[in-house]
Amino acid sequence: MSQVLVVRLPIRTRYAETDMMQYIHHSVYPVYFEAARTELLRSIGVSYRALEEQGILLPVMELGVKFFHPAYYDDELEIEARYQPRRRALIRLDYVVWREQQRLAEGFTTHLFVDKQARRAMKPPQFFWDAVQKALEGQHATV
Amino acid sequence: MSQVLVVRLPIRTRYAETDMMQYIHHSVYPVYFEAARTELLRSIGVSYRALEEQGILLPVMELGVKFFHPAYYDDELEIEARYQPRRRALIRLDYVVWREQQRLAEGFTTHLFVDKQARRAMKPPQFFWDAVQKALEGQHATV
Amino acid sequence: MSQVLVVRLPIRTRYAETDMMQYIHHSVYPVYFEAARTELLRSIGVSYRALEEQGILLPVMELGVKFFHPAYYDDELEIEARYQPRRRALIRLDYVVWREQQRLAEGFTTHLFVDKQARRAMKPPQFFWDAVQKALEGQHATV
Amino acid sequence: MSQVLVVRLPIRTRYAETDMMQYIHHSVYPVYFEAARTELLRSIGVSYRALEEQGILLPVMELGVKFFHPAYYDDELEIEARYQPRRRALIRLDYVVWREQQRLAEGFTTHLFVDKQARRAMKPPQFFWDAVQKALEGQHATV
Repeated sequence: MSQVLVVRLPIRTRYAETDMMQYIHHSVYPVYFEAARTELLRSIGVSYRALEEQGILLPVMELGVKFFHPAYYDDELEIEARYQPRRRALIRLDYVVWREQQRLAEGFTTHLFVDKQARRAMKPPQFFWDAVQKALEGQHATV
Repeated sequence: MSQVLVVRLPIRTRYAETDMMQYIHHSVYPVYFEAARTELLRSIGVSYRALEEQGILLPVMELGVKFFHPAYYDDELEIEARYQPRRRALIRLDYVVWREQQRLAEGFTTHLFVDKQARRAMKPPQFFWDAVQKALEGQHATV
Repeated sequence: MSQVLVVRLPIRTRYAETDMMQYIHHSVYPVYFEAARTELLRSIGVSYRALEEQGILLPVMELGVKFFHPAYYDDELEIEARYQPRRRALIRLDYVVWREQQRLAEGFTTHLFVDKQARRAMKPPQFFWDAVQKALEGQHATV
Repeated sequence: MSQVLVVRLPIRTRYAETDMMQYIHHSVYPVYFEAARTELLRSIGVSYRALEEQGILLPVMELGVKFFHPAYYDDELEIEARYQPRRRALIRLDYVVWREQQRLAEGFTTHLFVDKQARRAMKPPQFFWDAVQKALEGQHATV
């Protein structure tokens, strides 16, 4: 089975995000990924803000980005976030930065669920798997 | 009485801080001010990090910056922070951004002490005034 | 005459913009102002990106922000930018950061038109005044 | 031959770099890497600023970071940058983020030399290889 959850978040690049090379600085892409990640979670009914309020963190364990073409100031981008659920502690998301049909960059992040109080890794909470399952079924239903 | 506490923090500007105008972006100056503010507190024996660990926040209430000349990538700047103590709840610090003898920018911030738990303004803690007093006397002693 | 050009830009705050105080860091507000400024210019038919491509810069000369209430992660804000045109070299814009009916912060920036090649202040170009005039008339017409 | 050029850049983390998880936000690590990269180039007599002024860019092609332990506000870090020269167009640097003896994160970046005017990849300029060679010999000499 290769069911995948996907969202696309439109982002207009900001002047402050440019550098003297005229490019959107490479350190901004993880910030875009994060914004898309928030939307992907929201799309399956999980508020990352509420998650932290319940004492659960989802820090980044690993980050990778490949840059194919620069983005510029005032570009209208779309940040695609994809999550192919696997029953593992380590969560991996993949990203593509689009400007219209052009693939500007690709990346991924991995995450562990962390107990905020104990500052220790924990298993993904059951309500997370339930939300994922429900979202995948919802996708199915609409097909 | 016009006794003043002063520090100068050397900062080398970073590529990520530039914008497509080739300038250090104006939103970076408050970050430099904040770094100098941390050093000014440290210079009088107050760790802002320890302050927060004790449940005391010092958020910015107001911020002002005047820009005279741009800073560029890889510039060696000095951020001067000045604090003229007054027995008031509202703390004001003044800043100058120097590149050698050239005054690139000036600014100020005001702050209130805030009780982290209650999220409410509080009087500056006595140990803060004690540290200020001791620092001013130390300055005197060295004159 | 007190005609005013106004836009409101919706912005969802990002995780990367928070600080350990849980607030959106104060240095992010000038970035929001700038994004709203770009939209205000766009609303009168002026692309700031095209402006720079024509060799005209609009750097910030002064910046001020007053913070009334903190913004948090994943807040849906609106950044209001207002420009009351005056035939002066120094352009001033005013900003309000809203979360629903709550005024979280206010600010302003001033700007000079700068010749990119000469790196020298210049008079606002005629096409800028024309765009402003047309926008003000358009507002009138629709009333 | 496995000669390697290494520098260690001390960096004190800034409040603005924290996030609501209390950690230095993961998007800041590429900024630290970049600062260390500038120092590594400087250590072999190459000013990246001068490089750009001569019309040569060195954009990031790929970026990777692994996070082992979080960094916090006001931490005194050292950013280690390593470059093992190979006669290839693609330049790779490796990084370690240290807090005393603790390895907080590791990462790498790859870069291509780009002709600023033509916006096209170019071979690394001869003066770059010369500087690298001289630096390696200097290391040798001191052994």
